[in-house]
Amino acid sequence: MIGRDLLCIDDLTREEIGTILETAEHMREVAARDVKKVPTLRGRTIVNLFFEASTRTATSFEIAGKRLSADVVNFSTRSSSLSKAESILDTARTIDAMDPDAVVVRHNVAGVPKRIADVLEVPVINAGDGAHAHPTQALLDLFTVQKEKGRIDGLTVAIVGDIAHSRVARSNIAGFQKMGAEVRVAAPPTMIPAGVEALGVKAYPSVREALDGVDVVMMLRIQLERFAGALFPSIREYSATFGLDREKLRYARDDAIVMHPGPVNRGVELSHDLADRRPSVILDQVRNGVALRMAVLYLFSGRPPGQSALDGNSGGD
Amino acid sequence: MIGRDLLCIDDLTREEIGTILETAEHMREVAARDVKKVPTLRGRTIVNLFFEASTRTATSFEIAGKRLSADVVNFSTRSSSLSKAESILDTARTIDAMDPDAVVVRHNVAGVPKRIADVLEVPVINAGDGAHAHPTQALLDLFTVQKEKGRIDGLTVAIVGDIAHSRVARSNIAGFQKMGAEVRVAAPPTMIPAGVEALGVKAYPSVREALDGVDVVMMLRIQLERFAGALFPSIREYSATFGLDREKLRYARDDAIVMHPGPVNRGVELSHDLADRRPSVILDQVRNGVALRMAVLYLFSGRPPGQSALDGNSGGD
Amino acid sequence: MIGRDLLCIDDLTREEIGTILETAEHMREVAARDVKKVPTLRGRTIVNLFFEASTRTATSFEIAGKRLSADVVNFSTRSSSLSKAESILDTARTIDAMDPDAVVVRHNVAGVPKRIADVLEVPVINAGDGAHAHPTQALLDLFTVQKEKGRIDGLTVAIVGDIAHSRVARSNIAGFQKMGAEVRVAAPPTMIPAGVEALGVKAYPSVREALDGVDVVMMLRIQLERFAGALFPSIREYSATFGLDREKLRYARDDAIVMHPGPVNRGVELSHDLADRRPSVILDQVRNGVALRMAVLYLFSGRPPGQSALDGNSGGD
Repeated sequence: MIGRDLLCIDDLTREEIGTILETAEHMREVAARDVKKVPTLRGRTIVNLFFEASTRTATSFEIAGKRLSADVVNFSTRSSSLSKAESILDTARTIDAMDPDAVVVRHNVAGVPKRIADVLEVPVINAGDGAHAHPTQALLDLFTVQKEKGRIDGLTVAIVGDIAHSRVARSNIAGFQKMGAEVRVAAPPTMIPAGVEALGVKAYPSVREALDGVDVVMMLRIQLERFAGALFPSIREYSATFGLDREKLRYARDDAIVMHPGPVNRGVELSHDLADRRPSVILDQVRNGVALRMAVLYLFSGRPPGQSALDGNSGGD
Repeated sequence: MIGRDLLCIDDLTREEIGTILETAEHMREVAARDVKKVPTLRGRTIVNLFFEASTRTATSFEIAGKRLSADVVNFSTRSSSLSKAESILDTARTIDAMDPDAVVVRHNVAGVPKRIADVLEVPVINAGDGAHAHPTQALLDLFTVQKEKGRIDGLTVAIVGDIAHSRVARSNIAGFQKMGAEVRVAAPPTMIPAGVEALGVKAYPSVREALDGVDVVMMLRIQLERFAGALFPSIREYSATFGLDREKLRYARDDAIVMHPGPVNRGVELSHDLADRRPSVILDQVRNGVALRMAVLYLFSGRPPGQSALDGNSGGD
Repeated sequence: MIGRDLLCIDDLTREEIGTILETAEHMREVAARDVKKVPTLRGRTIVNLFFEASTRTATSFEIAGKRLSADVVNFSTRSSSLSKAESILDTARTIDAMDPDAVVVRHNVAGVPKRIADVLEVPVINAGDGAHAHPTQALLDLFTVQKEKGRIDGLTVAIVGDIAHSRVARSNIAGFQKMGAEVRVAAPPTMIPAGVEALGVKAYPSVREALDGVDVVMMLRIQLERFAGALFPSIREYSATFGLDREKLRYARDDAIVMHPGPVNRGVELSHDLADRRPSVILDQVRNGVALRMAVLYLFSGRPPGQSALDGNSGGD
């Protein structure tokens, strides 16, 4: 994968996803060390090029880069529309001319990371673009399920919430299917994208049916401002029908886990109780996210020949 | 102190404060070296979690962390009320899940660092919360007095300004008393907290009386916007009565020093002349602040057994 | 140059500029290495003190500092007028008390870096002040021309655009003249400073005449908001007369190069075609800018005696 871009899950084969998850497992161990740092990317520069505010994801990538001993440079700027496409590309070209080893891009318009990747030589990692894709989120979710369940193949996953406008849903559907899981979605009709069944995804109008016998329940964050746009009559009604509490969770398998990309609207998507306690694994997702992003930065931005990713501690940093 | 939180001065015994000041003295020497860096916290991650803008204090902690070879990650976010307590705690839990070794918290609401510390395993260092506490400011003030006077025990300290709304005053009263100094305060009645005398602090309605024979005069920064709220009729009158110039300073001991946490409102709390020259020690406080925060980060976020804080230069970084 | 300030090109002799360009040539090689880092400024702290937003220049200095193994601290603050001079100086003094090894200053008011340099002991590098000076931009432009043409002495350079309000123009006029080049300017009369001919610069009212036989065409960025102020009737007319396209470029020498400090207003100063392709060297300027700033930080903030700037890779970082 060295030198390639990571724009969406479809860029990856099943085997490559396997390699990423395996590498993340090694990276996970680094965080448990006294010195949480490996020299893997020493002398490399990673630029976080964020056109959309996101302290959580940016911080996850920043910590991941630093634990690999890379220099991480945060470049945040605002730009709201594709009408400024040229200026976005010029910014990207300028960053590229400073010779970074990877550029992590987030933008609120779908397709911007791809357009940037088309003009840059350096690997571009998509950290979320509009409602299109968020591949490292899907990979960290796969990694979390793999660690919890020991496998992904053969599991059943229900994704609940605003599927139509969610890059998290889109990337997770692609990721879980590619790894052999069955994916279902549950949402009000206005939040289910047209033609979702053509993806091999079964859509359910209620949580209870969708959860029947599933191993994993993935709740999406609701954009509260969408309710003004009448995708659903009220938050209260949404929560009663599509929010998850322990009672509804009983429809899933006894050992089902609950996931959420965060931040949770407590009492809306998840009951307070479920937001904080097993079987929800929300903070594990965050923790695994750092390890997963270490793996992605390492595998895509490349390593010098003959150097292993995890040669002991960072004796040199 | 390894693994503990530092939320307010009362968390510390007199002996522990002594250890912190002694360690800061060693850290002070690091800044004088050609290579101003020790490997003490190599491979550790320190997160500056600032809910209130503060470039000065954040920069002091950032430089302190970097001189200890830690990776410092700045996470700034805005949040103005306790009604968002859950979201603040979720942010803190998310940061915690990224496995930092210390979290430095500032918030404009008193008590937030404590609430965060209650849910995190990692040491939380309070970098200022509302009008409650600012323990590292008090410690750096103690450190500065110790360096200037060779002792704290037995000295007399006058704190002048808006005592009622100042976390700096509150932490310094606790700190200087604990180390054996006598503390007096001087302020207009609206700026003196009810019951201050129960703390063993004598309150004076004028600077002249308060300064009589003191070793240290600590001027507080006036929040100019409070005057709109009528705590005091006018800035001009406040300055005439509670501002310090060389004339009023004559009431103090001949060798008295003048302190201020910065930034100074020149011509209000301090005359221009006193803002810039001895016996004021304002820039020494800033310089000592970096060393003191190095000591705090080192002592609270822990070190691997058998490693000394100051083993030569950072050969490894 | 160790320990000196770099405020404008006039601070430097021709020989010193030669040394800077030569050092930049070595630094340029670092970016081509697998490990793009030298240990030159290990344990040093560089503060980017930016009173004016500038992610591009700040990022260039940040990457330059990190490739020298320095700790780089970004301190951004807003301040719009000289009426706050005291508070600017107090901020600078506060930063200075934290013992940095260099302070990089940008401010939208001319002269602020000089005033800061007057009160600080540490080297101050001017990263752009009002319409006064931008010495590292001029140096990176000299460096780029030197690399393209093999020399500067004897070349002819045309600078086109709002000369009167451009710190880039001012510093480049000084720099190219000092290195033996002939400098011409072309702009509408309202954009040519009074007395420019006294500097030995010939002013032309049209691009075609100015370009006749030149080796280098340097286009300036137009501040589009100035058109509201009627320096020129319309953007369209400005572009027709003073914008550069391949047709007008034919007046220059066949091997002439085109420069621009970025970001380009495409279709205004430069045709889209010229913005993207040779003979424009805009991205080379960016790339060379990192190397040039490495050279400046190294030469001005000093090195320990006996240590060479480029002793192999950063074995220690």
